[in-house]
Order: sequence, then structure tokens, then C-alpha cells
Amino acid sequence: MTSFAVPFEVGAIRRVSCQLEFEVTTPAVLALQVAVASTAGDILGERLDVSVDGAQPAQPVSETATDRGGRIHVVHADPGRLAISYEASVRLTQEPPVPVATEDVVIDAEAIAALRQSRYCPSDAMAGFAAVELVDLERGPTLARSVAAWVFERLAYVPGSSDTLDTAVDTLLAGAGSCRDFSHLAITLCRALGVPARLVAVYAPGLSPMDFHAVVEARRGSGWEVLDPTRLAPRSSLTRIATGRDAADIAFATTLTGEVELLSSEVSTVIDGDLPADDHFTPVALA
Amino acid sequence: MTSFAVPFEVGAIRRVSCQLEFEVTTPAVLALQVAVASTAGDILGERLDVSVDGAQPAQPVSETATDRGGRIHVVHADPGRLAISYEASVRLTQEPPVPVATEDVVIDAEAIAALRQSRYCPSDAMAGFAAVELVDLERGPTLARSVAAWVFERLAYVPGSSDTLDTAVDTLLAGAGSCRDFSHLAITLCRALGVPARLVAVYAPGLSPMDFHAVVEARRGSGWEVLDPTRLAPRSSLTRIATGRDAADIAFATTLTGEVELLSSEVSTVIDGDLPADDHFTPVALA
Amino acid sequence: MTSFAVPFEVGAIRRVSCQLEFEVTTPAVLALQVAVASTAGDILGERLDVSVDGAQPAQPVSETATDRGGRIHVVHADPGRLAISYEASVRLTQEPPVPVATEDVVIDAEAIAALRQSRYCPSDAMAGFAAVELVDLERGPTLARSVAAWVFERLAYVPGSSDTLDTAVDTLLAGAGSCRDFSHLAITLCRALGVPARLVAVYAPGLSPMDFHAVVEARRGSGWEVLDPTRLAPRSSLTRIATGRDAADIAFATTLTGEVELLSSEVSTVIDGDLPADDHFTPVALA
Amino acid sequence: MTSFAVPFEVGAIRRVSCQLEFEVTTPAVLALQVAVASTAGDILGERLDVSVDGAQPAQPVSETATDRGGRIHVVHADPGRLAISYEASVRLTQEPPVPVATEDVVIDAEAIAALRQSRYCPSDAMAGFAAVELVDLERGPTLARSVAAWVFERLAYVPGSSDTLDTAVDTLLAGAGSCRDFSHLAITLCRALGVPARLVAVYAPGLSPMDFHAVVEARRGSGWEVLDPTRLAPRSSLTRIATGRDAADIAFATTLTGEVELLSSEVSTVIDGDLPADDHFTPVALA
Repeated sequence: MTSFAVPFEVGAIRRVSCQLEFEVTTPAVLALQVAVASTAGDILGERLDVSVDGAQPAQPVSETATDRGGRIHVVHADPGRLAISYEASVRLTQEPPVPVATEDVVIDAEAIAALRQSRYCPSDAMAGFAAVELVDLERGPTLARSVAAWVFERLAYVPGSSDTLDTAVDTLLAGAGSCRDFSHLAITLCRALGVPARLVAVYAPGLSPMDFHAVVEARRGSGWEVLDPTRLAPRSSLTRIATGRDAADIAFATTLTGEVELLSSEVSTVIDGDLPADDHFTPVALA
Repeated sequence: MTSFAVPFEVGAIRRVSCQLEFEVTTPAVLALQVAVASTAGDILGERLDVSVDGAQPAQPVSETATDRGGRIHVVHADPGRLAISYEASVRLTQEPPVPVATEDVVIDAEAIAALRQSRYCPSDAMAGFAAVELVDLERGPTLARSVAAWVFERLAYVPGSSDTLDTAVDTLLAGAGSCRDFSHLAITLCRALGVPARLVAVYAPGLSPMDFHAVVEARRGSGWEVLDPTRLAPRSSLTRIATGRDAADIAFATTLTGEVELLSSEVSTVIDGDLPADDHFTPVALA
Repeated sequence: MTSFAVPFEVGAIRRVSCQLEFEVTTPAVLALQVAVASTAGDILGERLDVSVDGAQPAQPVSETATDRGGRIHVVHADPGRLAISYEASVRLTQEPPVPVATEDVVIDAEAIAALRQSRYCPSDAMAGFAAVELVDLERGPTLARSVAAWVFERLAYVPGSSDTLDTAVDTLLAGAGSCRDFSHLAITLCRALGVPARLVAVYAPGLSPMDFHAVVEARRGSGWEVLDPTRLAPRSSLTRIATGRDAADIAFATTLTGEVELLSSEVSTVIDGDLPADDHFTPVALA
Repeated sequence: MTSFAVPFEVGAIRRVSCQLEFEVTTPAVLALQVAVASTAGDILGERLDVSVDGAQPAQPVSETATDRGGRIHVVHADPGRLAISYEASVRLTQEPPVPVATEDVVIDAEAIAALRQSRYCPSDAMAGFAAVELVDLERGPTLARSVAAWVFERLAYVPGSSDTLDTAVDTLLAGAGSCRDFSHLAITLCRALGVPARLVAVYAPGLSPMDFHAVVEARRGSGWEVLDPTRLAPRSSLTRIATGRDAADIAFATTLTGEVELLSSEVSTVIDGDLPADDHFTPVALA
């Protein structure tokens, strides 16, 4: 069934790119998370260009490793127009094995971190609600998928309806949100029900309009299955960028110091051949 | 049906009383709302005693009329032990007529006020949630009752589980609360669905443990029906004290200025004869 | 001093008007608060036109009296383009007497209502903060003015930076807001410090860009002084529309039932002669 | 100067212990963080006893390494009375070097994590407030210390005044809290001002009443200085347990699955010789 619904394109080449432009008004340090994760496959080629008013910044860009293969690029920029251009070609060398379900969630350090309440996923505040609202969802290995399906049914997808301070509580009350909000609500409910869950930034071929996308990884046995409560792109074509507790960890650009304003962003990603189908129930893992 | 389920005891005498003790540490002004509403029936006898360290306060207690027959008693107290004792006997002279249902809610000034978002009933924040969560409740005259039933089924009654800053959102998330919280959630959902609703402080024979009680009044036609989402006391035996948008308006004691701590409170209320039954669906109005 | 700083233009004519356009998608009931308060002066002429797709609505507009001379117009509209046009000419017949300061705030029913925590002014939640942050402000009759001055110094005026669910807490944290947010924060801090305060919607000649404006009324003795924490328009030229606890009570348009979207709004107001100066410290009362 | 104010007791033995009792009502998994960090010194002896109704649990306790030497013990417990007993003796082998100040904060992966908004430290929501409220604090290496001093001056230490869902915003508004709340507020303000900061659970000789304690680590150059906004215990005597973004990461006991209630906790910690003095300004690092 897995192979029918969500065929992985082992050997197929994924091309991803993004262009970001910022207005920097005081000397600033930014953390970028746009590069594909080191685990995402064979990186056939990759380029990251950074310029301020057309010139290279004085201080070179540095790369810092973070969770699950994530790579943060730290950029020091003087005031001016900061332009970021990234592109990469990645070949998936093998299909990530679908994690084997177990009756109980396996508790290790990763799982403990993914059970904790976080900035936008305050699972501690939502425990009472989750227990009653989702009392009819079957416990066990399919619970996270049922939660993602509940979120899909429940929320209206309205990009721009939320703001950056919104938590999963705000999303629940509003009944609408963007991909980030859908995933935050699913993660919060999973954690409140005892299922470790975390957020993954991805390049998502087929997403329309094209943009950075955010999906959920939920613990399945000792591995992780990927879930997209928006159902906007097939999961087997996603390419991982960053992995974290919620949007605080995986933003494509974070201003660490200084005054910076995002002027524009453009994302593109294509995959060789046709986009696979996705029923959004079959377990899929992400490289 | 009405007369079967919730017989009013016209002519029966209701006796209510409360004793409150406060520690006043700086000169203070308190607003008390413990006296029965002027509309609650014939007040056969009534007494309000106020003392600080056993002596009458220098400034006499004044009475101020408020909404729906409510009476606020303003107390000026110097530092010391402030003791409040109230008792009254009330005879209901006629059964308050059950309001006649209409297809649409009648919009007048009272209804507009009872549709507005308020401190503990932020219906504006919960509009999206209410629309989806309660999509299956039949619209029309029975909607408020269905909302109260949903709250009754949904929440666990756990006195002491909430704090005074909690709104209906906190109650929804926690899944538990006291009578105030049950009513706040029902009011918020009613307003979010277009039904005017407000909070009423009452003496409630049969409540156990005995205390001040808070119930909901929801618009029915051009009148108001009383609903108790806790189902802890029969509605036809309730005696109205104060009426307002939420707990901000009907607290039994509000410190307007100064430092005051409540040390103890004791409430009692009895009604002649047996307590009536209440199915909590038949429409009942409150005098 | 009063007559120097903020001369009232007794006899001068104020002309106010607004045009509102809404898209009504399901049969709707709206509460409009655009008409000048009945206490605002001699209404020399006034006109309120309502049309849906160019035709008069089937159900006539009704007027409901509310607090402090406010007038709510209830509009029933079928789906279509709803156009509202209002204009009035008002002559101030006498300068509203500046309230006489007293050492203690006078506590009556109006004052008690204006001390209560409300939807956007959660003074109960901010009591600890207000006591410490504003410990140096002199208590007594000038306290409300000092609070308004603190808000003026503290916040950046950034229309559009807030959203309709924001409370005074959000404004405090953001450090920025619109006139509504400035006033909400001042009101909340006043209440937390024991000074009754409320919100007033006004026509404000001199405001730029022109729009509906919101200012504060704070208790002074047994009266009310008007304060504008934004200092964007002279207080003596304001014309009162609606008065309430916070924006929940004084919105120029509230959708009571149905689906309605505001498409455009235009406000204009002029006053005979030059705009008066305003030092924003001299006590001024509003008719 | 350092040696005067906050002498480290190299070679001195620290003895720490705690006893916890829980009521487990459904099969549960707990994460304990009570063991001293592996970096805290030479662990001379250590014992962790776990029993349910007096018997060892069927599944052995496992240890998981976490950030900065932290050790999580995962306990699987069947229903019954769960008793945890931990004790350790630690000898500090060398004084942790005080980090060297640099003009700019050094940005590495640890610093980036400690700049992120988190569950109880929503620095994104408080950025506007921090910029204006703390505008007079000198920027540079002393900023974190000034923030901690501001929190010390600002808040009242009132254990029990907060609840477990409270964030730094709630603490700021209430003006009071426990050690956790003091540290959360300091961390949030530091991050909002661009200084990486995180929370450390410690054993704190001299704390009264004795309990688990929580303090702040703020980035200084490429290291971390420890700050205690409560000033309740000398920093040089603290022994690190766990390190994280906020209380979500360092709780002494977290229920991962199942129903568990804490019945009692007892903490003790002593240090050879007299407690050192602490001026709470001299930079101190934690082993």
C-alpha cells in the first residue's frame, strides 16, 4: 500500500531554490535556515550567495549544525539591502524506511524533547481540552494521523489570517490559519495526548502558491512519521530543511540582533517526473 | 410541562443570608452585591449589618441601583476586621412568565449589551471555534439550552481549579471549572453564535456545598430564560442578586480602593417545602 | 488657564459626517454608533441614509438610547452592498463645566462601572504591574492625567500595528498601537490604580489622517475629564458619539448577526474657525 | 575581586539529596531531572532509589543524556505510591573560569538556541516592552546583570503566587512570583534585548525554605555567567542539575504519559564550611 500511495523517487533529482531580500537598518546578525538538511540525500550541487548592496559582507557566512541534519547559516550584515540566494540539487539515495509501529511510544531523548510544551505549542495548557475533544480517536500507532486528520477537517486554510505571535490556542479559537498554524495545532494536541511531535520546515513540490512549507513529525515506534495537516503537498516529495519544537526553531530567517525587515521572498522547488499521489494516511518517513 | 418540571412556589417564602469577614489593611471602599434584587419578589424583611472591629463604620453604607433590579451597597471601611451580615425573607408574588420563543432573537438595548464580548467572555476570540465545534446544534429558540447542555457534558465541575483571572478560553482549555466558569463558557459560546447571554448571581437552595451561585440568562424572544450549565440547583428556586456581563459585574464583593482580604464567607438559603425538580431543558424565567 | 489653553467654541458649529460601505453576505443585523450623542449640543440638522444595493432596507432603522446620550442605530440588511451615510451639524450651547477635583474619587454607579475590568482593559490582570511601574506618579486628582502622559511617552503611534482582539496587555508588550490601544492602556492603568476610566468615541477635528477617534474619560471629583493619550487632536473640539467600558461598547459598527465585511469608511469633521490649542494637561470636560 | 565576593570552594564537598512521593493512578512514564549534571564536579557517590508501593518497578530506570551535562532518568511506574530518593556527594575539582567579556555576544549554536522565544519566555511578544522599559540599561557585557537587578528590584518574591501555566508576561503583570518566575522574566527580557539566556535547575545551599532552585545563565563572551534574580542563595555554591530554555526543559519531574500526582517533595543540600558571600554583580560561572 505504501508503494502505491506515496512512491519515493529514489534517484530522482530535486531542485530547490530561494531568493530573499531584506532591508537592514542597523548592523545585524541573521540566522538563516534555508539549506537542505545534511540528511536529505546526496547534495549534488549547492550554492548560497549573500550580498549587501551588491557586495559581499565583511564577515564571512558561517555554518552551524543543528538538530536532525539542520544547518544554520549565520550572516553578519551592515545596513543596506541584503540579498540571499540559495539553490541546491539533491538526489534521494534510498527511500527512508517507514518506522515500525509499536503499541507504546518509545521514550528516548528526542521523544522527551518532542513531548515538551513549547512557545507556539502550549500542550500543557491544552491537556484538558485534548482529552475530552478527542476522546473518540483511537489510541495507539494511528493516533497522530487521526489528530492530523481532525485538524485538516477542523481548520480553514487562510494564509495571512494569523500573525507571528499566534499559538495553537489562537489557531484553535480562530478556526483558521496557515501551514504553520495547522502544524502547531496538530503538534500541540499530539503532545497533550502523549505522542511526541515536532515541526519540520521543508521544500514542498506541488505547493501552490509556492512558499516554504511546514509539516509535522510524530513519533511512530522508535522512528518518526511525517504528517501534513494541510494536505497541500505529497509527503514523499518533501525535502527537509530544519527540525524543531515549533516555528521558533525553524524560521527560514531569524534576526538575532539588529533591525531587519523582510522585503520579499521567493521559493521554488521541482522534482523530476510527476508528483506522486498522497492519501495522507499511509505512513511516510522523511529523509 | 413547565408546571411539572419546575413548579414555582408562588407564595412560598425564601430565606437567604450571608456572613462575610474581611481583613482591611488600608482605608478601603467595597462594593457589595449580596442583597436580593428589587425584582426578586416581596421583600418581607431584610437586614444588612456592617462593622469594623465591632463598631459601625464612620461613613454610612449607601445603596446604588444597578441593572435588572440589582442593588450595590458601598461600604467605606477603616483598617480592621470588617464583618458583613445580610439576611432577607422574600415571597415570590407571581411566577415569572416564561418568555415566548421567536424565530429570531429580538434586538434591543439589553440584547445588544448581552451580545458584546466581555472580560471573561471573549466571544470575539471564540467565534471561529464556536461556529465549527457547535455546527450540529440546532439554531433557533433551543440553541442556548443546547449550548448549556454541551457545557454541562463537556466540563468537569472542580471548584478551586480555576483562578480569578481565568476567562472562558482558559476554562475551555482546562476542561474544568466552578459555576462561574461553566456559565462564562456557555455565555461566550452563546454570544459567538449570536444569542445574547449574561451572568446572574443567585441564592440557590439545594446547592451543595452551599455558596453564592452563578447562572446564565439567555435571550428567548423578547425575554430571558435562565440556564444552569452546572445543573447543581433547581432553577425555579433561585433568587436573583445581581445581573451583568460576566463575573466582573456581579462579584459579591469588589474592592474599589484600598487593601482588603476576604477571610471567610458563609451563605445559606432555604425555601419553604421540598425543592422542586428540574430537567434543565424546560424554559424557566427568573424574577 | 483653562480658557487660554483649550477655549470652547460656544456657538460655533461643528459639522460631522461619515460614509461606510459593507458587503453583506447573509441576512444581517448591525448596530451602528456613528450619530453624535444627544448631549453633544444642539443638533441643528442630521441625516442617516441606509441602502442595500441602492434600495432602502425592508425593515426600518431603529434607534436605541444607550449610556451618556449615546444612540445606537440598528440596521437589518439583506445580502448586498450596504451603504451608510451620516451627517450632522451640532452647535455647542454651553461650555461643559470642568469637574471640580476632590481628594478622593467619588463613588457612584457610573464610577463603579468604570472601575471594572473589561474585555480590552483587564485591569485585574495589570494591578501588580501598575502599582510598581507607576509608583512615582502623584496620587490624587492629577493621577489620570499623569497616566495618560505616561502612555503618550511610552507608546509609538502606529496605526495598523494592532488587531481587533488585542487587549491593553498586548499593547503594553508591543509598545505601539492606534488611538484605541493608547486609550485602552491608559484606562486599564487608571482602573488598576483606583481611578474610574472609560472610553469615548468622538469626531475629532484636526485628526490626521481623519478617522473615528477614541479618547479617555477619567473620573475627576463627581465629574469626568477627557484625556487623549495620543495628543492627536485638541480635546475641546471633540464631539461625543458613544461612551463605554472599552472598544466592545463603542465600535462604530458591530455585526450582531450575519456575515458582514467592511469595505470602506470615510469620516470628516470640521469646526468653525481655527482649531484651538491643547496642552493636554488642563482639565477639559466633554459635552 | 571575584575571589573576594564569591569564593569557590574547590575541593569542598557538596552533599545533595531529595525525596519525592507520587500517587500514580494509571501506568505512567516519568522523566526525572534530579541528578547532578555530569559536569558539576567529581561525583564521589550517588544513589537513586525508585520504588512503587515499596517494590522496585518491573522496568529498570534508564538514564538519558541531555544538554550541558544534564541527565534524565526515565521511570516506568505502575499504579501505586511511587517513591524517589536521590542523594549524591560532589567535589568541585576546579573553579569554573569566569567567561571573558566581549563587546558583542558570540553567536554559536548554543547562543542561537538561547535567543529563541520559548513556552514561558515569549521574548518575541515582549520585544517592544523591553526596548522602551529598559532603554536606560547600559548595553554591552553588563546588560544581563542589569536585567537581573531590574527583575530583583521589580518583583516581590511570593512562592505559591503563580501557577504552572504562567509565562513571563503573567509574572510581569502580577509583579510577583517564585524563583522560576523571576528567572523566566529575566531570561525573556535578556533575549528581547539580544542577549542569549537560559534556565538552570540547581541545588542551592542556603536557600530558605530549602527547595529546588532555578537561576539564569546569560551569554558573556563565548561563555555563560550565572545570575540569580532572586538573590536568595550564593551563586558559587550552586550545583547544576539541568539546563534548558525554560521550565519546560528542567522540571524535576515530568509526567510523559499516565496520571501522576505529586504528594510531597523534600530537598536538602549542604556544603562544607561557611556559605560564601555573593554581591550578585561579580561574574560567576557554573560548573
